[in-house]
Amino acid sequence: MTKPPTPMLDRVAGPADLKGMSQADLVQLARDVRQEVISVVAQTGGHLGSSLGVVELTVALHAVFNTPFDKLVWDVSHQCYPHKILTGRRDRMHTLRQGGGLAGFCKRSESEYDAFGAGHSSTSISAALGFAVGREMGQPTGDAIAVIGDGSISAGMAYEALNHSGHLKSRLFVILNDNEMSIAPPVGAMSKYLSGLYSGTPLGKLKDMAEDFEAVLPGPIREGARRARQLVTGFPGGGTLFEELGFDYIGPIDGHDMGQLLTVLRAARARASGPTLIHVCTVKGKGYQPAESSADRGHGVAKFDVASGAQAKSQPNAPSYTSVFGKTLTDEASRDPRIVGITAAMPSGTGLDIMQGRFPQRVFDVGIAEQHAVTFAGGMAASGLKPFCAIYSTFLQRGYDQIVHDVVLQNLPVRFCIDRAGLVGADGSTHAGAFDVAFLSNLPGMTVMAAGDEAELVHMVATAAAYDEGPIAFRYPRGEGMGVEMPERGRILEIGKGRIVREGTKLALLSLGAPLVDCLRAAEELEARGISVTVADARFAKPFDTDLVARLVKEHEALVTVEHGAEGGFGAMVLHWLARTGRLDRGLPVRTMTLPDAFIEQASPEAMYAEAGLTARDIANTGLEVLGIAAARFGNAAR
Amino acid sequence: MTKPPTPMLDRVAGPADLKGMSQADLVQLARDVRQEVISVVAQTGGHLGSSLGVVELTVALHAVFNTPFDKLVWDVSHQCYPHKILTGRRDRMHTLRQGGGLAGFCKRSESEYDAFGAGHSSTSISAALGFAVGREMGQPTGDAIAVIGDGSISAGMAYEALNHSGHLKSRLFVILNDNEMSIAPPVGAMSKYLSGLYSGTPLGKLKDMAEDFEAVLPGPIREGARRARQLVTGFPGGGTLFEELGFDYIGPIDGHDMGQLLTVLRAARARASGPTLIHVCTVKGKGYQPAESSADRGHGVAKFDVASGAQAKSQPNAPSYTSVFGKTLTDEASRDPRIVGITAAMPSGTGLDIMQGRFPQRVFDVGIAEQHAVTFAGGMAASGLKPFCAIYSTFLQRGYDQIVHDVVLQNLPVRFCIDRAGLVGADGSTHAGAFDVAFLSNLPGMTVMAAGDEAELVHMVATAAAYDEGPIAFRYPRGEGMGVEMPERGRILEIGKGRIVREGTKLALLSLGAPLVDCLRAAEELEARGISVTVADARFAKPFDTDLVARLVKEHEALVTVEHGAEGGFGAMVLHWLARTGRLDRGLPVRTMTLPDAFIEQASPEAMYAEAGLTARDIANTGLEVLGIAAARFGNAAR
Repeated sequence: MTKPPTPMLDRVAGPADLKGMSQADLVQLARDVRQEVISVVAQTGGHLGSSLGVVELTVALHAVFNTPFDKLVWDVSHQCYPHKILTGRRDRMHTLRQGGGLAGFCKRSESEYDAFGAGHSSTSISAALGFAVGREMGQPTGDAIAVIGDGSISAGMAYEALNHSGHLKSRLFVILNDNEMSIAPPVGAMSKYLSGLYSGTPLGKLKDMAEDFEAVLPGPIREGARRARQLVTGFPGGGTLFEELGFDYIGPIDGHDMGQLLTVLRAARARASGPTLIHVCTVKGKGYQPAESSADRGHGVAKFDVASGAQAKSQPNAPSYTSVFGKTLTDEASRDPRIVGITAAMPSGTGLDIMQGRFPQRVFDVGIAEQHAVTFAGGMAASGLKPFCAIYSTFLQRGYDQIVHDVVLQNLPVRFCIDRAGLVGADGSTHAGAFDVAFLSNLPGMTVMAAGDEAELVHMVATAAAYDEGPIAFRYPRGEGMGVEMPERGRILEIGKGRIVREGTKLALLSLGAPLVDCLRAAEELEARGISVTVADARFAKPFDTDLVARLVKEHEALVTVEHGAEGGFGAMVLHWLARTGRLDRGLPVRTMTLPDAFIEQASPEAMYAEAGLTARDIANTGLEVLGIAAARFGNAAR
Repeated sequence: MTKPPTPMLDRVAGPADLKGMSQADLVQLARDVRQEVISVVAQTGGHLGSSLGVVELTVALHAVFNTPFDKLVWDVSHQCYPHKILTGRRDRMHTLRQGGGLAGFCKRSESEYDAFGAGHSSTSISAALGFAVGREMGQPTGDAIAVIGDGSISAGMAYEALNHSGHLKSRLFVILNDNEMSIAPPVGAMSKYLSGLYSGTPLGKLKDMAEDFEAVLPGPIREGARRARQLVTGFPGGGTLFEELGFDYIGPIDGHDMGQLLTVLRAARARASGPTLIHVCTVKGKGYQPAESSADRGHGVAKFDVASGAQAKSQPNAPSYTSVFGKTLTDEASRDPRIVGITAAMPSGTGLDIMQGRFPQRVFDVGIAEQHAVTFAGGMAASGLKPFCAIYSTFLQRGYDQIVHDVVLQNLPVRFCIDRAGLVGADGSTHAGAFDVAFLSNLPGMTVMAAGDEAELVHMVATAAAYDEGPIAFRYPRGEGMGVEMPERGRILEIGKGRIVREGTKLALLSLGAPLVDCLRAAEELEARGISVTVADARFAKPFDTDLVARLVKEHEALVTVEHGAEGGFGAMVLHWLARTGRLDRGLPVRTMTLPDAFIEQASPEAMYAEAGLTARDIANTGLEVLGIAAARFGNAAR
């Protein structure tokens, strides 16, 4: 299919080119940008629906505000493709989310137009308020505008920021991108009215503001608009909440009507003096039928055929860890009515949707609220339930204090199911699961497991279900399993015990979790050179198997630990113990292979691990090095 | 002064004894409990004001609800003294906050009446909701009641929990203990009306509920009550917010009027079907004039004289780290207008009040909102300001994801000022600053310093002010400095460089931060036995001084690192490096002294460090051990 013409977009080198355009031009530009987003994502895959939903909004924001002097902060920023297309990155959009290419999110190091990077949700208002205060204190920066979705604004962090913004009263724009609005028909009629600013604004100012809009609303309609707003907004409270928090509220407006957008944004820019919330209703996937009509509105898609919308499906070799987790937990739940599941707005991402399908009353989706999720699970555990709290490694960071203070300190048996551990591919460094082993393994009384393959994951779910003596966590990587034979049912592992997977004599490789397969490959390579290698699977980072480690160091010339996590984790715990027990005193060649002291940019997981120095080849070479063997290092052939 | 008689309290062995009491008896009981709290805290010191504010509420809750089957969850739980007195712990109240004594907070391991422990704020609603769901799923537990202050409920986590509670619609009681109410006179008249449940409730149900109250409010009064409530509540939105979040709202009621409390709690217990918020207005410090009339309402007090209220003041030997930080930052700020300070509701606790006094526009108190505080600081740094974000080590845990994702990943020069690092004494394990070095030191691009004494802190503030290349943190302990000579002005330290404090030949002690003084003491003890000791101050945990470590291990027989933090921190980073560079291959006696793998209960800091095995004596003995010297270990004489 040939790419449709984009004449108006072709005239745009950067946002400055939007300034002189007529409204009709901008409407045409939005049409072109939408075509471009569809064409690009058809090639690259990515966050299609969110980006299609904000095409007109993005055009209008760049037309009205003076970026990059004005700071445009996109929450989560997976909806940034139109923004990237308009800010000088159009020619690199085909590299999106690929190694060496454009990031899938905003990134300060990528463009001066990316005022503040993201990936996790609900941070934009805090950051924008920081810019607003900077401006007030004389820093060379213009207006601050946060664009945040209705899902993200419900998180505690966004509430804290709204609360503080209302208190400070600094001029700040928060654009609420409400794409649940479209499912509530009553808004249709009312959205034609551009409502003025309501409570908290003296009438004089209200009238003054309203002059910039189509009409001054008479009292009854104003009341009607307020009621309608409350009816139609998907989150509790609607506009009223924002007014109570000290914001001037404008909306709801139609986020696909360029006229409304330009009128409101221009008026707000000209007149606003304090924090101002502009409630914009958009349709996720807008303008591309296959996205609009899909259940998730084309949230995240693979490469696809533009005409049909059919996505390229790769043929999986093995079930994904996520689905193995979901099925195993459902199976355990069928035998134990005390098992409950908790997710923070990701039932399908975590695989809890499988359990939800069978036991809908026993899965709790708390929304984007990881802090609450953890302590809520703590309360359930204290009541006698067996909560499985399923949160990706990177997002679990947001519940860290709750893990320490509410769960671990009280030794409550919450089960943490940590998907996306290690490097995750196209989502890049914001989504890396790099730190969980480190931040969990030094917590007193915590148990931390990592699955070496998908069968191990089955055992770990069973182990966590059976273990009621304190908090326990298990981590597993993104993507497909190894294709190993699957057990009928999970076996309860002995806490704190690892296993020998391959016996050798000279070098010991001690793997935590996913690197197991690479350790086995490395062992084969080394064996081919006559070096006999033991490979052990630690299974537990805490408490780790000290008997196993003692045996490994006693019976081998050298030890290498391997983990898909940052320093300070499993390898560090082993080193602390080796030092404490005097095992380092008389010489012990040991290396701890971890993620390096650097953030790894997006690429294929394989390429990311190569950059991290954690391939089978790297493991084999570390083996040579720690043994003091001056042989030629393994090259690219061994991976 | 003799202890006043407490005849009614003397009849109470536990909450069951309250069940048969008349309202008059309960009023008398509250009077007795108040006397008891005052008598106890006069001897022990502690959180006087908060506990005095909830005396009647505590009595009423235990009279109406069926604890411990019903789960009473106190937020922060520093207000738990009346609760402890009534739940079988009266005879141990004189041991409060002392080693081996009662904790200053609720603690599950201390009493079955402490349904959920706390110390950090804003966790109670999440935990209570967990219990409520447990009950609905058949666990043997009764009603769940969270008691939360107006400061704590404004944090994001509490909002997340309210939001989820309103969504689930489980029967759950949230008691909003609003002690800012007392400063707003208009409530006086209105609080006599017990308002019914407002919006969200069908009129029939409203009338039904209202029958239990003094009167069915006529429409206009109902409206008046709503307005008054909005006027008088200290937080944005008042009751309306809760209603919008799906709660039935009752209040405001007078939290010192036993009749109102009993009527409302009984009615609510009898009738409520979903989440119910009861807004109770209390006076912090109530009933004890010296507390009521002090600026902080007797929030945290030392031992005091009951008659006069005069607190025992210990004579400080040296300025506190907190005041040194506050003064130094103010001094730096006077020379650099880009410096701003951020605190999460603790201007005086962090010492930022000193800067606030001089530069009120440049210190930002964001409320209990550590997540927002960190990202707000990130936004300010991105705008060109120099934010100093001052958060205690234990509370910084709540901003961990924001540190990783918003600050470090973007390499923004936010300065983290980490007070209360290490063990903190009477506040015990919930407040221990144990994990910061570990959770910060494996973040790429982060710089982490720790002050060996108060003069070092001055240099570190200056260093952080001058360092603009990325995020930087410095930690310092609670309490007084060492009494060292203070520099006129801070000196900019070379990043990543430590210093030798004492030269020796046989053993190297490498201290990070506060253990420096104990390392020097240990060196003296060892020297007295003829063992020559070098003591080095690492200054930087990241990047640490590899040249210094290389020299120490080369020129000495053994190395001991010492830090006031958990495993996975500074010592772990040193071990990783020693392993990576092959320095362990041929034998290197090394020990890493850290906090142990256990939570340390409250006691004096000295006693806590003794339990942790981190005294000067412990360091000296570790020195003997790592050197393989079979001499007698140092006993209690050496500390």
